[in-house]
Amino acid sequence: MNIILFEANETGKPLPKGDERTSHLLKVLHKKAGDTFEAGMVGGSRGTGRIEAVEASGSLVFSLDLGESPPPRVPLRLVVGFPRPIQLRRLLRDLANLGVEGVDLVGTELGDKSYRNTTLLTDGGARRAFIEGAVQARDTMLPSLEVYHSLKMWLEKRPWERCGSFLDTPDGDADFRLPSILIAADNVRPTGSLARLDTPMRSALIAVGSERGWSDRERDMLEGAGFLRLSLGPRALRTETACMVAALLAMEKIGALD
Amino acid sequence: MNIILFEANETGKPLPKGDERTSHLLKVLHKKAGDTFEAGMVGGSRGTGRIEAVEASGSLVFSLDLGESPPPRVPLRLVVGFPRPIQLRRLLRDLANLGVEGVDLVGTELGDKSYRNTTLLTDGGARRAFIEGAVQARDTMLPSLEVYHSLKMWLEKRPWERCGSFLDTPDGDADFRLPSILIAADNVRPTGSLARLDTPMRSALIAVGSERGWSDRERDMLEGAGFLRLSLGPRALRTETACMVAALLAMEKIGALD
Repeated sequence: MNIILFEANETGKPLPKGDERTSHLLKVLHKKAGDTFEAGMVGGSRGTGRIEAVEASGSLVFSLDLGESPPPRVPLRLVVGFPRPIQLRRLLRDLANLGVEGVDLVGTELGDKSYRNTTLLTDGGARRAFIEGAVQARDTMLPSLEVYHSLKMWLEKRPWERCGSFLDTPDGDADFRLPSILIAADNVRPTGSLARLDTPMRSALIAVGSERGWSDRERDMLEGAGFLRLSLGPRALRTETACMVAALLAMEKIGALD
Repeated sequence: MNIILFEANETGKPLPKGDERTSHLLKVLHKKAGDTFEAGMVGGSRGTGRIEAVEASGSLVFSLDLGESPPPRVPLRLVVGFPRPIQLRRLLRDLANLGVEGVDLVGTELGDKSYRNTTLLTDGGARRAFIEGAVQARDTMLPSLEVYHSLKMWLEKRPWERCGSFLDTPDGDADFRLPSILIAADNVRPTGSLARLDTPMRSALIAVGSERGWSDRERDMLEGAGFLRLSLGPRALRTETACMVAALLAMEKIGALD
């Protein structure tokens, strides 16, 4: 843990002995009363925490002095055909580690319907996965997470247009003169490769299908919505790996890995 | 499974009922006697397998007609400070999925010594992880895997110089006039960023430290051996993710993602 993150409802009361943050502070970092640590509020600012006391029960009384901004978001949003639940957990963690703005999960025509019934989305597991990734990057902000029944519904709702870096509001900022690029990963019927795309871009929206990829109907819908269908290279990749490849190539082009 | 891979000692006898390849062929792909499937020999060629019979015991009698070359290797070798065993397994799988030539694991000065005692290296788990990744990419070749006690010993042995794409033998092939680049991922004291490196390269050797990164002594050793110390971007990444970022950026520059 590179930062200890708290939820807003956790302030003003001790951190229980059994909490993994308590054991990390006391047993891994060997902190004691009076010591400080890197701290942040989920969705808020960062700064310094201080251990005020370790109670007889093993609970930890702490104070927070926050006020520093989190690192900037990476202007990138992914829409992903539901992967297997175990892959989904890791994917959410890794995308939060990279700092992307948002992840949308959609049912796809060739995807396994049962994958949608993951408890990750109902038991707080998705949020825990995001926090695990954010903590690694000393970040306090989590990507947005939305779920759509189908690609078609997602394309109709256009959630990315509500998203910071896709807003079309040039205000003298040079970066706003660069386009937002819409890319659909497609190793079956690509029109080029993402690696070779050399359009300068300010932000990217990337669609990655499920294990079996897109149906032709979905390809047409994506094309109709302005998505470029680009390959991620010559090899078939696991969904999780394909998402990382697409996100990282786009991040490189946006300049988020400089 | 995008291809059914066999080990050399598995030909000429039926595939047991309990084998996951048997259940994949019969239960997932619904194949029956007379049907064919994509097949390959680990370390050898690819082609077509045929189910000759399904025995009463549930074992599967098959024949192989191989002769097609596997996809080309990606001219990339990684040396990685031992990650946590659970991360190591996934890392090996993902690097085999990407098609890299080799992975070397080294002890590092800031790394956790206990990570080296993973059973993955003694119970065949590493090979299974490689096969899982290769299968996804319809590949038959596995990366090489070598283990070194320390970065110093690895630098002394220079195993990459035994490796195909690092051999210095120009023979009229234009690609051989491009250099092989040596890169050490270093987010603490970088001299630039890998994303912005614009040297054309034919192959890359990438060193990624363990969770706590490199010691200054190791930085000096890497620099002395000709490694460029480059950042992977502004965010702290998990070891596994850092390896993927480094590998993918290098693959893009080599042209392996076109």
